[in-house]
Amino acid sequence: MIFSNTPIDPKIVSAKISESGLPDFDSASIREIVKLVNIIEKESGQKYMRMEMGVPGLPAPEIGINAEIEALKRGVASKYPMIEGVADLKRELKRFVKLFIDIEVDERGCLPSVGSMQGSFATFLVANRTDKSKEGTLFLDPGFPVHKQICKVIGHEWESIDLYDYRGEKLRNKLEQILSKGKTSSILYSNPNNPSWISLNETELRIIGEMADKYDVIVIEDLAYFGMDFRKDYTVPGEPPFQPTVAKYTENYVLLISSSKLFNYAGQRVGTIVISDYLYNRRYPDLKRYYKTDEFGYSMIYGSIYALSSGTTHSAQYGLAAMLKAVNNGEMKLTENVLEYGQRAKIMKRLFKENGFSMVYEYDEDEELADGFYFTFSYPGFTGNELLNHLLYYGISAITLSLTGSTRTEGLRACVSQIGLHQMPILEERLKKFNEDHQKKIANL
Amino acid sequence: MIFSNTPIDPKIVSAKISESGLPDFDSASIREIVKLVNIIEKESGQKYMRMEMGVPGLPAPEIGINAEIEALKRGVASKYPMIEGVADLKRELKRFVKLFIDIEVDERGCLPSVGSMQGSFATFLVANRTDKSKEGTLFLDPGFPVHKQICKVIGHEWESIDLYDYRGEKLRNKLEQILSKGKTSSILYSNPNNPSWISLNETELRIIGEMADKYDVIVIEDLAYFGMDFRKDYTVPGEPPFQPTVAKYTENYVLLISSSKLFNYAGQRVGTIVISDYLYNRRYPDLKRYYKTDEFGYSMIYGSIYALSSGTTHSAQYGLAAMLKAVNNGEMKLTENVLEYGQRAKIMKRLFKENGFSMVYEYDEDEELADGFYFTFSYPGFTGNELLNHLLYYGISAITLSLTGSTRTEGLRACVSQIGLHQMPILEERLKKFNEDHQKKIANL
Repeated sequence: MIFSNTPIDPKIVSAKISESGLPDFDSASIREIVKLVNIIEKESGQKYMRMEMGVPGLPAPEIGINAEIEALKRGVASKYPMIEGVADLKRELKRFVKLFIDIEVDERGCLPSVGSMQGSFATFLVANRTDKSKEGTLFLDPGFPVHKQICKVIGHEWESIDLYDYRGEKLRNKLEQILSKGKTSSILYSNPNNPSWISLNETELRIIGEMADKYDVIVIEDLAYFGMDFRKDYTVPGEPPFQPTVAKYTENYVLLISSSKLFNYAGQRVGTIVISDYLYNRRYPDLKRYYKTDEFGYSMIYGSIYALSSGTTHSAQYGLAAMLKAVNNGEMKLTENVLEYGQRAKIMKRLFKENGFSMVYEYDEDEELADGFYFTFSYPGFTGNELLNHLLYYGISAITLSLTGSTRTEGLRACVSQIGLHQMPILEERLKKFNEDHQKKIANL
Repeated sequence: MIFSNTPIDPKIVSAKISESGLPDFDSASIREIVKLVNIIEKESGQKYMRMEMGVPGLPAPEIGINAEIEALKRGVASKYPMIEGVADLKRELKRFVKLFIDIEVDERGCLPSVGSMQGSFATFLVANRTDKSKEGTLFLDPGFPVHKQICKVIGHEWESIDLYDYRGEKLRNKLEQILSKGKTSSILYSNPNNPSWISLNETELRIIGEMADKYDVIVIEDLAYFGMDFRKDYTVPGEPPFQPTVAKYTENYVLLISSSKLFNYAGQRVGTIVISDYLYNRRYPDLKRYYKTDEFGYSMIYGSIYALSSGTTHSAQYGLAAMLKAVNNGEMKLTENVLEYGQRAKIMKRLFKENGFSMVYEYDEDEELADGFYFTFSYPGFTGNELLNHLLYYGISAITLSLTGSTRTEGLRACVSQIGLHQMPILEERLKKFNEDHQKKIANL
């Protein structure tokens, strides 16, 4: 039931949900929910606690911005960027993976992309075509829904498992079961995971690496939230602990390191692709169906990336190079721009729990989850779709976990980035009101 | 035969050509030729007259650069750009097509892309999937080789005809013959044409439009060299003559307007896609194989462009918006940054002709070709492959016309952008030497 005195005028909310034409929130895209909330905000004149978008909510580092401005003044705008990346960026990226992940990669395999979105698209275009008897990608979910959209747009198949159901050694049997069918070209997961904020441990990464080698599958490790497991300090260049990675356990890997969250640099669309030396040089005869050569690295750069956009925006490459250099040299602390996300998550999770909500993904095996960019929650007696529907009347927006491939259909994903510390009292008040109104429902369960 | 006293040390040239491992220059990519010439320049210490790359050779307008710098200072780097384009760019692009092409398009269909390369990729991904009984693109060649590479990377078929063989009414029969097979999803051509610098006339554009309607084919008009037919003055906003376009004759069109050449803005990877209102709203049930909806425009933006890179670099969108606004308002003259290309071409064509060379594509029907970004040439008794091979000893580089889909295998394409007016005496000297050395060969023909 809908209450009459909700924080947002219930007539407006009902009307706008109905007018949106969305069948339900389990199949709506994030952008469709964004649009709906924009419309309700405009009509009601009230601001939502917006937790549906995984977008940066903090400013970009001056170091990156200034380096872009200098590059523009130097005249880079008129010159095609090197497709394989400008020298400064390749050098700093190679150093970065050595200093913060502790892996060695040749500069040749250190590439810029137009955001990690293009990085994934480019990688799928090659990795999923290395063996014509294979069909596509296995996603270790929950995850970023657009990765599956990319597979669909390209015309590749995909399947997925919910990681939370297969932690630790259980993962080996499940992967064995799927990969042994011989249809999997690549495995993709985010670490830390969007949206569950699970961080894969060394046992799990080792299993993924071993299974990749056993079944000759390419692992695409999405490091969109690089270093943001704030339980550990990954910020000292060249010193352990390092950002965990599958690259310690297999050479069949491509890393996607985004600047959008780590450096709050989503606007400039500049990410990176790191290909292992082994994979770069490897030859797959079946690539010749789509590319001039059978070499993986060459097909990535001059086949896929070239055709996708003829390289990455020139000034943005220099901006990213400068930020990487600053963290490599210890002049800027890695994650210093994003630490506040952890503080926000800690408070927000407490507020939800104090008001009748539970965390859906709550543990990393036996340890409590890190506080980071996302968390996941549910409320007794509601499916995710119903819960989002009701929360909209209380000025709170999120997305359903179903949308992310999770099997936990009761849950919602919250992103902390748009909720400043000063807004916590409003969030608390709305959650309290929601809980008061709906406790009756719980009592009837 | 190779002469011993050529401008570049013949031992070095022979060795480097041999070491390159390229089978011949008809199948080498432009980038492979660029690489070879870089190596020879480095080894010999001598500079080439470099005409192989179609890259801007003049600086980018201050207006664009300053607008990018201001946007960066305003903080756009941390915010995801609107996938469908920032409001300023959409507004100015709509005005631009009205003022300089004289067509009306809703802002909804005025989109940014990460260069026209992404514009083509995104358009193929949708246009070539509108009808599952069709197979791909018909190219009106010669053209940009990477467009075919895009089709291959996506997995679409393509075929091509050499426009020069089918000027005027002849084009109708040829198109009828190909399109009536029912396998063509889209037609792509550049106007002015890269590399022949042919400009399609109104008769030909009308034929293409009529044939597109008759066989329900989408026309992709590549305006990479917008306004650069310098025989006409297309530069006065809102006043005829306008840049000729197929949009006058069909509603089945997508225009790709690049900033790389028009504004010397290749480095920032920002181009535009303009979709007709009719096509934007049109529904193609077969699109549902790859996209969420059957609507063309929605599939382009939230299906294709979103998955390709999650939009176009934020600051670059503001840079392009500012340049479009300046030409729309008459504050900056369209093509004022590129007029020098026409002057260079005029001189270079004369120098080639005075030294025994002929122009391959010389006429636009009965009129002489415009002087612009490219011209095409041959020398008696040589194939294009042989000619390039020999010219390399004289410090002159270009690409073969075969590479562009031309049937004129005797020719080479020259781009004027890297040859400044002060370098013309060196070019003249080298051409003279080449001609002196090779006249014997002609005499023996």
